[in-house]
Amino acid sequence: MILEDPDVSIGYLGPAGTFSHEALVQLLPDVVDPVPMASVTRALEAVRTGLVAASLVPIENSVEGAVSATLDELAAGTGLQILAEIAIPVRFCVAVRPGARIPVRSVVTHPHAIAQCRSWLAENLPDADLVPAASTAAAAVSVANGEYDAAICSLRAAAATGLAILADDVADNNDAETRFILVGPPGPPSPPTGADKTTLDIYMRADQPGALLEILTEFAVRGVNLTRIESRPTKTTLGNYYFSVDCEGHILDERVSEALMGLHRICGNVRYLGSYARHDGRSPLSRRGTSNNDFAEARSWLARIQGLREGG
Amino acid sequence: MILEDPDVSIGYLGPAGTFSHEALVQLLPDVVDPVPMASVTRALEAVRTGLVAASLVPIENSVEGAVSATLDELAAGTGLQILAEIAIPVRFCVAVRPGARIPVRSVVTHPHAIAQCRSWLAENLPDADLVPAASTAAAAVSVANGEYDAAICSLRAAAATGLAILADDVADNNDAETRFILVGPPGPPSPPTGADKTTLDIYMRADQPGALLEILTEFAVRGVNLTRIESRPTKTTLGNYYFSVDCEGHILDERVSEALMGLHRICGNVRYLGSYARHDGRSPLSRRGTSNNDFAEARSWLARIQGLREGG
Amino acid sequence: MILEDPDVSIGYLGPAGTFSHEALVQLLPDVVDPVPMASVTRALEAVRTGLVAASLVPIENSVEGAVSATLDELAAGTGLQILAEIAIPVRFCVAVRPGARIPVRSVVTHPHAIAQCRSWLAENLPDADLVPAASTAAAAVSVANGEYDAAICSLRAAAATGLAILADDVADNNDAETRFILVGPPGPPSPPTGADKTTLDIYMRADQPGALLEILTEFAVRGVNLTRIESRPTKTTLGNYYFSVDCEGHILDERVSEALMGLHRICGNVRYLGSYARHDGRSPLSRRGTSNNDFAEARSWLARIQGLREGG
Amino acid sequence: MILEDPDVSIGYLGPAGTFSHEALVQLLPDVVDPVPMASVTRALEAVRTGLVAASLVPIENSVEGAVSATLDELAAGTGLQILAEIAIPVRFCVAVRPGARIPVRSVVTHPHAIAQCRSWLAENLPDADLVPAASTAAAAVSVANGEYDAAICSLRAAAATGLAILADDVADNNDAETRFILVGPPGPPSPPTGADKTTLDIYMRADQPGALLEILTEFAVRGVNLTRIESRPTKTTLGNYYFSVDCEGHILDERVSEALMGLHRICGNVRYLGSYARHDGRSPLSRRGTSNNDFAEARSWLARIQGLREGG
Repeated sequence: MILEDPDVSIGYLGPAGTFSHEALVQLLPDVVDPVPMASVTRALEAVRTGLVAASLVPIENSVEGAVSATLDELAAGTGLQILAEIAIPVRFCVAVRPGARIPVRSVVTHPHAIAQCRSWLAENLPDADLVPAASTAAAAVSVANGEYDAAICSLRAAAATGLAILADDVADNNDAETRFILVGPPGPPSPPTGADKTTLDIYMRADQPGALLEILTEFAVRGVNLTRIESRPTKTTLGNYYFSVDCEGHILDERVSEALMGLHRICGNVRYLGSYARHDGRSPLSRRGTSNNDFAEARSWLARIQGLREGG
Repeated sequence: MILEDPDVSIGYLGPAGTFSHEALVQLLPDVVDPVPMASVTRALEAVRTGLVAASLVPIENSVEGAVSATLDELAAGTGLQILAEIAIPVRFCVAVRPGARIPVRSVVTHPHAIAQCRSWLAENLPDADLVPAASTAAAAVSVANGEYDAAICSLRAAAATGLAILADDVADNNDAETRFILVGPPGPPSPPTGADKTTLDIYMRADQPGALLEILTEFAVRGVNLTRIESRPTKTTLGNYYFSVDCEGHILDERVSEALMGLHRICGNVRYLGSYARHDGRSPLSRRGTSNNDFAEARSWLARIQGLREGG
Repeated sequence: MILEDPDVSIGYLGPAGTFSHEALVQLLPDVVDPVPMASVTRALEAVRTGLVAASLVPIENSVEGAVSATLDELAAGTGLQILAEIAIPVRFCVAVRPGARIPVRSVVTHPHAIAQCRSWLAENLPDADLVPAASTAAAAVSVANGEYDAAICSLRAAAATGLAILADDVADNNDAETRFILVGPPGPPSPPTGADKTTLDIYMRADQPGALLEILTEFAVRGVNLTRIESRPTKTTLGNYYFSVDCEGHILDERVSEALMGLHRICGNVRYLGSYARHDGRSPLSRRGTSNNDFAEARSWLARIQGLREGG
Repeated sequence: MILEDPDVSIGYLGPAGTFSHEALVQLLPDVVDPVPMASVTRALEAVRTGLVAASLVPIENSVEGAVSATLDELAAGTGLQILAEIAIPVRFCVAVRPGARIPVRSVVTHPHAIAQCRSWLAENLPDADLVPAASTAAAAVSVANGEYDAAICSLRAAAATGLAILADDVADNNDAETRFILVGPPGPPSPPTGADKTTLDIYMRADQPGALLEILTEFAVRGVNLTRIESRPTKTTLGNYYFSVDCEGHILDERVSEALMGLHRICGNVRYLGSYARHDGRSPLSRRGTSNNDFAEARSWLARIQGLREGG
């Protein structure tokens, strides 16, 4: 993969110390000087313009749901390709300046973090002002600068800004996870691993009732399971949607490629956004008759009966 | 087609004068000395052994339904191929020896003909003995021989045996039709005409609930309509069936060939029995996205995204 | 059941000694003087006119398939109701007059029996004339009368006509079974047993592609499995069919009754032909959420949310 | 409807001058002193605690998509009921203090408004600082207070704060609309109007492949069309979703109520969130056999065949 070249630049949703930063380091431990980007839009535009070889952005959180900005940015403009994914636990700490004395009168963080730490805040800092920041990492910076008393942020952000940990694991739901994707330019897909996913944007032809059922049937009839489906507005009129979909399998798997061709034939548009190894390594649920061998065997059977037909 | 060679022998369900004979002459007007066969089994065995190049047998009547012997004979033994089909009206006359005087005390014919002429018989010959014969043509012969007073048969059979027509069009349902198929050995299919049918025998993998729904979905998802479906026993235990199916389209049509491969993958066995021009010349009901062009376009789109992916 | 009254008359497809006779005695051991009928049509007409309280007729053979006459007679005329079913092995013997000497030069039997005993005949009586009879029981009578040398018939028919058994179990397939139904007039269904079937004739609204898929979906969505489906011509034009269907479950089962109402809404016509205990006592394949309790629970949930809605 | 009582309090997503405020005044022109709420959560909690009789909140924007906070708040806690919906165009103006001179060096507004007016800003105020605010109405207030030079807000907000209009209709997409719902406590649904929608939250039983297909089939088989489907995380682990769905029709429509019972039987949980008149007055796409009359007719047919069965 091009990304193994240590000289290429990799972007991520910054600033330094965000969970995207954390995820990038875990996914590509040898990455050198990754480039923080001010927004998902900037991060993906930088891929399109060639400023970076790839960018890592969040796509989904187990509590907050899809990251709309990422879905919409993938759907718009020139094509991009998801190269890899990673999911990491979302672990929040409360960080203060070293030596700062309680009481904490103001807490700054990203609004999502406020939402996810509501119980801890209600119990421990019921009277603190809650101040929104652009990111949890930016919140840490503003505490380090003395603007507020405490930040809710990652341990990495706290460490990067020299803050002390007042409390750790303060999220209401300790199992919260965020999934991130590494997005690069179009190109040949990476080889199948046996535990892959494929991401698509699917546009129906018209506001036809039953279109979603038809779409799902194209997958189901070839034994391809969906792991995620999001409807997003086409930005035209209320009630017009496209679907962002993850399915099990790789575009080089026969059952996936036949399903894609089926979708292409019945849908208004299908945008392929990449096939890549699943973060959890789970193998697809298999249905009898849908392996590559089954497809190959059927094809040679067909060739036989289309031609001279011996046997049958 | 091999059948255009005037020297090849063609069989049909005999004896001379049957509706099969009539259908054969209509389908292949130049056929010379076709060979009457004593039964459907004999007619198709003669194809398998090479005694004849093809045989014409009935497969379906609009009143009586499927001809089980034909379906079962196609399903068993070595493979065969349907080369053509034709449907002809079933027109019955009552034939007597020339100069024979009424009253008619005995009427001989095939049991199906008795069933189809019940009203005329009840009204006109309520007291006649009804005698079963092996075929309507054989009935005509036995009347010519003086065994019985009248035969219900085709005009052709009456003419061939020198009988006079006492009454014509005596069937209860004047729209009754029988469909016949010309069956030859396996070989390359005849070229698509744009109004074709394909015949299959489909065996499920097990007594799985929902198997028929799965089978129909394989056709429906590719926009292939069925024109006939018959369940037939597999001759093992009660409640085990296979399906004899006619679908619109030709095995060289992409939507048909993909459906066939899908069936081959999920079914226990699929026997292809030929693609041939429809007797009624009706074009298939078309669904958007299922033409050969649509398939070809989808395949080249797939190749593009599987490879370097420009555009998308 | 009315049939427990020993004074009512019960008909069956005769003459005495047929497999229908055998089946009737097994199904209703206390039946007194059952009435042999000359044909399926006569047997069912006798129910319609009140001549008999019920008639037993064959509906399906594991080798020959459906008995078209029975399906068509149930579909036509005024409504009838299947009250019970039974399946019995089809066991053929070769019967001769006591003391008759071999060689057997002529064998008489029903054409189906000829077909099912082909191997034995080829091996043991390759040169005998094969003479068709209206039934295996009638064949036994004609041998007893000295018309032919041997009959293929049931042991019961041989015994009834005083014939000796030359060979037993002469069918090619020793597992062959025939299923019979006891048919009465319309009336309340017998109570559910937990292992029931329901029989329907289903007519589509028009020659709409996909109609069969819709019909199967009405069953599948309520978890109702089909055990038999036959297409039969509507006797109008070639290619128009209705479906004769057996499904698991009883008309008083919620999932069956909702499926029936669904069919009634989307189909041209649905004829209910009875709910009755399965001959094999097999319980229906159950799908979660489709028991009567599940339906009742869903109905009370709906009532709650349609009304004041507490909880939810 | 309780809301016609002028003394009840109605909440909305405030502060005064938001699009929610605008929508509320259009939907309920006679409303007196509606109560601005600081967040969607507060607005819906106020309904649950009885502080207000109902609250109006946004649920969907044609450009931004679903309002996750609203979906999640409806799904959590005790049940609520959607009473009505309204869609209004999203029309943004740029407002300044009267007499303020250009150049505009800072523009304050909600981040969504920044996103939707990107083109106008790039062309007309390429160098202005873009400052995020909690709402467009709050932005107007801060301009009136002299904190920033210009606000992007609604005309209503500009008027309420005494600002002058520098430019109107500055959104990139002039057709953008936001849909709002009026949410009250559980209770009997309002009567069907013939052009209604029903909103549901649907939870699958497990991570079963094909569950969404099953859900859609429950609707489709009864001819109920979906107008919106959103997947939202169940907040447990990545990859677990529930579906927020709008379907055509009213809970008192037979086809809808049968579909709901079907979903209740096969799903883990179904939360009914109300049936209410569509904002666009569009009648449902009708499929033959799915009217209330069709259901009633099927029910009486069933009763007839379950009972004495005359006719059929």
